[in-house]
Amino acid sequence: MRLADSFRSERFGAVRIHELQRVIELDSGSSEALRAVESQMVVVVPCMNETRSVIEGVLSGIPHDCLIVLVSNSDRQPVDRYEIEAQTVEQFCRLAGRSAITVHQRDPGVAAAVKAAGMPELIDDDGLVRAGKGEAMLLGMALAAMTGRQYIGYVDADNYVPGSVHEYCKAYAAGLAQADSPYAMVRISWHSKPKLRDGRLFFSRKGRSSQITNEWLNRFLAEYSGFGTEVIATGNAGEHAMTLALGLKLRIAGGFAVEPYEYMDLFEQFGGVLESTDPDVMASSVPVLQIETRNPHFHDNKGEEHVRGMRMQALNVLYHSPVTLPAVRQSILDFLIEQGALATGQEPPRERTYPPVGTLDLDLLYDALDAEALSFRQPDGLALTGRPPAPPIDRASIPRRVA
Amino acid sequence: MRLADSFRSERFGAVRIHELQRVIELDSGSSEALRAVESQMVVVVPCMNETRSVIEGVLSGIPHDCLIVLVSNSDRQPVDRYEIEAQTVEQFCRLAGRSAITVHQRDPGVAAAVKAAGMPELIDDDGLVRAGKGEAMLLGMALAAMTGRQYIGYVDADNYVPGSVHEYCKAYAAGLAQADSPYAMVRISWHSKPKLRDGRLFFSRKGRSSQITNEWLNRFLAEYSGFGTEVIATGNAGEHAMTLALGLKLRIAGGFAVEPYEYMDLFEQFGGVLESTDPDVMASSVPVLQIETRNPHFHDNKGEEHVRGMRMQALNVLYHSPVTLPAVRQSILDFLIEQGALATGQEPPRERTYPPVGTLDLDLLYDALDAEALSFRQPDGLALTGRPPAPPIDRASIPRRVA
Ligand SMILES: Nc1nc2c(ncn2[C@@H]2O[C@H](COP(=O)(O)OP(=O)(O)OP(=O)(O)O)[C@@H](O)[C@H]2O)c(=O)[nH]1
Ligand SMILES: Nc1nc2c(ncn2[C@@H]2O[C@H](COP(=O)(O)OP(=O)(O)OP(=O)(O)O)[C@@H](O)[C@H]2O)c(=O)[nH]1
Repeated sequence: MRLADSFRSERFGAVRIHELQRVIELDSGSSEALRAVESQMVVVVPCMNETRSVIEGVLSGIPHDCLIVLVSNSDRQPVDRYEIEAQTVEQFCRLAGRSAITVHQRDPGVAAAVKAAGMPELIDDDGLVRAGKGEAMLLGMALAAMTGRQYIGYVDADNYVPGSVHEYCKAYAAGLAQADSPYAMVRISWHSKPKLRDGRLFFSRKGRSSQITNEWLNRFLAEYSGFGTEVIATGNAGEHAMTLALGLKLRIAGGFAVEPYEYMDLFEQFGGVLESTDPDVMASSVPVLQIETRNPHFHDNKGEEHVRGMRMQALNVLYHSPVTLPAVRQSILDFLIEQGALATGQEPPRERTYPPVGTLDLDLLYDALDAEALSFRQPDGLALTGRPPAPPIDRASIPRRVA
Repeated sequence: MRLADSFRSERFGAVRIHELQRVIELDSGSSEALRAVESQMVVVVPCMNETRSVIEGVLSGIPHDCLIVLVSNSDRQPVDRYEIEAQTVEQFCRLAGRSAITVHQRDPGVAAAVKAAGMPELIDDDGLVRAGKGEAMLLGMALAAMTGRQYIGYVDADNYVPGSVHEYCKAYAAGLAQADSPYAMVRISWHSKPKLRDGRLFFSRKGRSSQITNEWLNRFLAEYSGFGTEVIATGNAGEHAMTLALGLKLRIAGGFAVEPYEYMDLFEQFGGVLESTDPDVMASSVPVLQIETRNPHFHDNKGEEHVRGMRMQALNVLYHSPVTLPAVRQSILDFLIEQGALATGQEPPRERTYPPVGTLDLDLLYDALDAEALSFRQPDGLALTGRPPAPPIDRASIPRRVA
């Protein structure tokens, strides 16, 4: 993949946000640099009740050298959809000669392992890991960390265009290779987003909630700098990747607050406003690359209600951040009241956030998963290619806790 | 790219049609074999009045090592759309550091060159190369032949999903590498074909005209073998590739008859029914690989009229082929009459066909293009990358005429 050059960026403390970059060629002819990243990359696929053929398409788009981690929150009653998903992944691994990890978010064994590893916050009143996309991403990151790989990327399971999944992964690799920093992040802005609804198609350049999230994140920056900016174009980017060295330090928000909260947590931890606990990161800077992909993002539409929810969650996060300046907080309040989303005198709710994955004891996590989580699988299609079987996680070399 | 194995094939003389193969992975991790093919491949893009951004997307999907040849039949009045296209290609070449060829089908200089090279059949009453997709493909093949490359692939310019263009090219390369024959062809069957019309979306597994074309081509085979078959799934495949050694021997049909006629011409020339003039091909066999891609084929919809036209053209070709058995010819007549496409007692019209591109004198073609065709361009973005400029066609090493 060849990316256009990015000439401009805006700095906020150690965080350097690069202007949106376009993709010039999907395949630029020299693949070595990308493969080097891909062979160190875990791609986490959060999945909830998607159809088998769509999942199959998504898997087919993930470059061979990436390790697939599917985290499911699908129904197990009346049909066990997770079993179907696990079989789909296993069959794919067999055909493609690769290995993968799958797990179900609501498996009691997973909850036990998370508790053992030291994050009781993730457990709900039923004693299970909470439902939510952010929670799935957190679990996926913990699994990724256990493999010892260096990078993590996220790809939704509800994408109708395998070629766009492929492009996302290539953009992650190209961006991470270009950023060349231990603490880098790559976020995707899709070219366009056709949406199916009642058999009709909507073709729009901007997602509805993204537009608002980006606008407010940019106002956050402008309030500090005194200059209006449009640099942030990926506030709600579900598709994004980062170095695990960075990922393990980030606090993760629950549900759909997860994506905008990544920006806010970068600003809180590395923005230079609050004192940083991490001189290492502060010294080396945190590049955030934003890449506009070529393919349309053509996926399932979860409806208006869902979009409204996402938009609210982004503003809740922004409102409650200790680094958001008072003028912006006030404007958010006014906006929410004006939209009828909040009554006068009310405050936006706080979104749930979790400690960094780096605080987990991964050895304990693995042992408990291995012993108790029936849904925890490591399908291995490598064996059939004549290569020695190599499960993605090697118990003997799980990295130590970093935070 | 990793393809599923193809276990079954059906033989018709020297032609060996392989069962449809699925794509397992878009990127299988080892790219050497594919790059070897790509660096010998010309990708011809027939283009007529498509928008700039769609063309740009298509170009971005063509792998770096392939040489792009754009053959346009776009309006030059009131706006010169060809100039815009040529600029788009030139800018892309600059950004991507590659070279390309562009030409306009209705350029008087092109007509003069075609005449000089020995194919007056291609010229119409206005003294220009005839309009039509088949005619554009023929011109593209002649240009491809002049470059000395070994493979040619076709990609439409009206594709909304750059990732699917990318997948087509990868499938060409993977198929040609797998076929490993001097006379191989790869034809694409898209996974599904969503269609936009009046803002509404139609999602169908089979193209409307493809279904009928395939059915009749399979009946053609079954009439010989006595066994029903469904092996042919790519009768109308606009997306296909082949070795130039094969391509230069094929007669090419005009308009939209071009694709089904490729099958018929293979059967006529190498099916063993008529005496072959080509012992070389007969001795080595002609594998036809059919690949079902992962991406939806999401493109512009030219409407019902156009589809009906295409369907008719396929049946016309089949009806008039000297190798079609009488029972099939009679059934075609009955079918066309039943459909109201033909009056009783009428015969289907003959489609126009041209001699093989291998009969052209390429040296004369080049010299006349170079001297007279104002639309003939070889944009070269290589120079900017510091490499010595290398126009795709080297006058000194144009291959000699082969047929
Ligand atoms: N494991 C897991 N996956 C989830 C959960 N919620 C959503 N997902 C998956 O996360 C991906 C994105 O979810 P969507 O609900 O489509 O959200 P979105 O795509 O960001 O929202 P829209 O683009 O506006 O439709 C899909 O693959 C879902 O299946 C969850 O609680 N757990
Ligand atoms: N150069 C050239 N290109 C053409 C001509 N006719 C069509 N094309 C191009 O050929 C490609 C395919 O043409 P379409 O008319 O869409 O035909 P199709 O895609 O096979 O038909 P549908 O899939 O049923 O819409 C497009 O990129 C057109 O711009 C022509 O006369 N000359």
